[in-house]
Amino acid sequence: MTTERAASETGDPLLLTPGPLTTSKRVKEVTVHDWGSRDATFLRINDAVLARMRDVVHGGNEFVTVPMQGSGTFAVEAMLTTFVPREGRVLLLVNGAYGHRAKRICEIAGRQAVVHETPEDTPPNLAEVERLLASQPITHVFAVHCETTSGILNPIAEIAALAARHGKRLLIDAMSAFGALPLDARELAFDAVAASSNKCIEGIPGLGFVICRTTALAATAGNATTLTLDLHDQWRNFERTGQYRFTPPIHVIVSFHQALEEFLAEGGVAGRGGRYAENCRVLIDGMRALGFEPLLADRLQAPIIVTFRMPADPRFVFQAFYDKLKDRGYVIYPGKLTVAESFRIGCIGRLYPDQMRGAVAAIGDILREMGVSSLKPAKAAA
Amino acid sequence: MTTERAASETGDPLLLTPGPLTTSKRVKEVTVHDWGSRDATFLRINDAVLARMRDVVHGGNEFVTVPMQGSGTFAVEAMLTTFVPREGRVLLLVNGAYGHRAKRICEIAGRQAVVHETPEDTPPNLAEVERLLASQPITHVFAVHCETTSGILNPIAEIAALAARHGKRLLIDAMSAFGALPLDARELAFDAVAASSNKCIEGIPGLGFVICRTTALAATAGNATTLTLDLHDQWRNFERTGQYRFTPPIHVIVSFHQALEEFLAEGGVAGRGGRYAENCRVLIDGMRALGFEPLLADRLQAPIIVTFRMPADPRFVFQAFYDKLKDRGYVIYPGKLTVAESFRIGCIGRLYPDQMRGAVAAIGDILREMGVSSLKPAKAAA
Repeated sequence: MTTERAASETGDPLLLTPGPLTTSKRVKEVTVHDWGSRDATFLRINDAVLARMRDVVHGGNEFVTVPMQGSGTFAVEAMLTTFVPREGRVLLLVNGAYGHRAKRICEIAGRQAVVHETPEDTPPNLAEVERLLASQPITHVFAVHCETTSGILNPIAEIAALAARHGKRLLIDAMSAFGALPLDARELAFDAVAASSNKCIEGIPGLGFVICRTTALAATAGNATTLTLDLHDQWRNFERTGQYRFTPPIHVIVSFHQALEEFLAEGGVAGRGGRYAENCRVLIDGMRALGFEPLLADRLQAPIIVTFRMPADPRFVFQAFYDKLKDRGYVIYPGKLTVAESFRIGCIGRLYPDQMRGAVAAIGDILREMGVSSLKPAKAAA
Repeated sequence: MTTERAASETGDPLLLTPGPLTTSKRVKEVTVHDWGSRDATFLRINDAVLARMRDVVHGGNEFVTVPMQGSGTFAVEAMLTTFVPREGRVLLLVNGAYGHRAKRICEIAGRQAVVHETPEDTPPNLAEVERLLASQPITHVFAVHCETTSGILNPIAEIAALAARHGKRLLIDAMSAFGALPLDARELAFDAVAASSNKCIEGIPGLGFVICRTTALAATAGNATTLTLDLHDQWRNFERTGQYRFTPPIHVIVSFHQALEEFLAEGGVAGRGGRYAENCRVLIDGMRALGFEPLLADRLQAPIIVTFRMPADPRFVFQAFYDKLKDRGYVIYPGKLTVAESFRIGCIGRLYPDQMRGAVAAIGDILREMGVSSLKPAKAAA
């Protein structure tokens, strides 16, 4: 058994989490400067970031990226409260914590919502979605591309096709999938996609983005319930002045610009998504070989984060497992699921297949150290 | 005439702006790492930041710091929409852009507001404030400590005394003054004070703070109009889990922790405020010697940012002046005032009196280069 400790380029534990995640050294080093928020150099960097984010979804001239200070949830709340008017009605497709969060946002903002909920390991029932779209005065559909709760890949193309067929406008929380899984405005009809700086583009946290269909955004004046989260006002101000209305997280943005450079150098969505898919395959194969059971069937598994069932063996004490793994340089994520006792391991960030192999080897060592003999979960997989 | 270019520790132009501002090299260098958002090391750093922010205002056990992702305005909107209930009525003391912003926030959130507005160079009329407090069903008073629009110091102690005498709750936008001008919870009664990471504590932008009287905050459940800007929910979640509800700007927070270390090493409010006061004195004396007129009388001038009247001489072209000054390494701030054509020069951030002398000398050089003969403004000072 080795006690070698894995580390990132900057000597930190590897973050096998759904983000904030491990980033390159350069992504952080470029921030060791100061810029004024109205400085031309910074504004050029910001413009490039916004244009490139739109290009990731092939938005072309029909789309515009509106950044939102804060985090991904700030962007999602801004998207829902700006796009869904008071008299609108949004169908929320819920199969995890992020769908529930959207529901809470709509409740607080007084937005009528219809909820189609499925268990965390189950995609939406498309026949039921179609029935709701046909029978209710729904104006918008909200879907989560990859629900980080379980790591499930939701059928976004099918959802988009249904929404389009029924003339409903689609809002996508793409967050943990953005930049790793294809989302192409030329093939899928949507009005807005929310993303953040600290997911698959591999930047540091502090900024959200909503990539908006310009004609749809132009119709949202006066919808928002707050000043700061008003995407229409944020956009109009950029159009007028080229600047943020309120102080932007400059260092986060400059860092994100570097992250986008590295993303493009890796081959964009195909390259980045390809590496993550390989990370995910190495992880799942290795964990299965040890005896762990992934929650999801392979066809439902996005290459972002994998949920494993918690072994029933009382010698498998999760906190001790977590701590020992952290001591070896691997930080994983405790579960948040209701369908099964579980824990999660992410495959995104500046991590490579060899590091995933290292994580699996460390897990094997720790299981032997803990004397765990069986990894069978308490309940058999469904 | 020298063409020597002033620069910060990291080789950047000096930011003579109201923030984002020049920070120390170390404040940025500490961020060249990755942390998980639920990582114990990061959470300890965050706890220390929150405790120290409360200590800056001598909040003791009666106060708690609630951070708010985004920027100062996110914190101000969170403060107003969380503390002022739907059935409340807030008296807004307005003498600049930040007071107007508070008014807009209240309009959008449907909060009843009474506005007492004075010109940008004029503090509130305390007799009129008292009359309003005595005659209207006001629940809260909102005041801006230093209105960055003009740089005016508002009489916060007198406002607090009036509010207390009439049993009204005070909310302070301290933003640009926080850490440089004393604000002491043992001497002034307030329920909440909003601040941000990129002002006088000299951190990088991306986070706001509201230092809240715990008993008042406890009574605000259900007031907020959004999920993300709900200070009560943010606080309760910290109490329950010690963690942020939504991804925090980790690097900004770690950087801010270092900024607080440097702030304390400089002697806290007394030391930091003392340096800024000296910066301000050097700037005003130097600019007066050149012939410029500050907008404000000395007794109204906060040592944060100084507004100078725009000279009427047509050879003084502001954009050329700004660009030449930037070429010499000094970035100043164009004016936003309505009472007078003007420009502004900040005295906060990691700047020292010698650098302010350098700025004044560069301005003198540029005036000679531009052939400006008189600095008299178009209209004489009031």
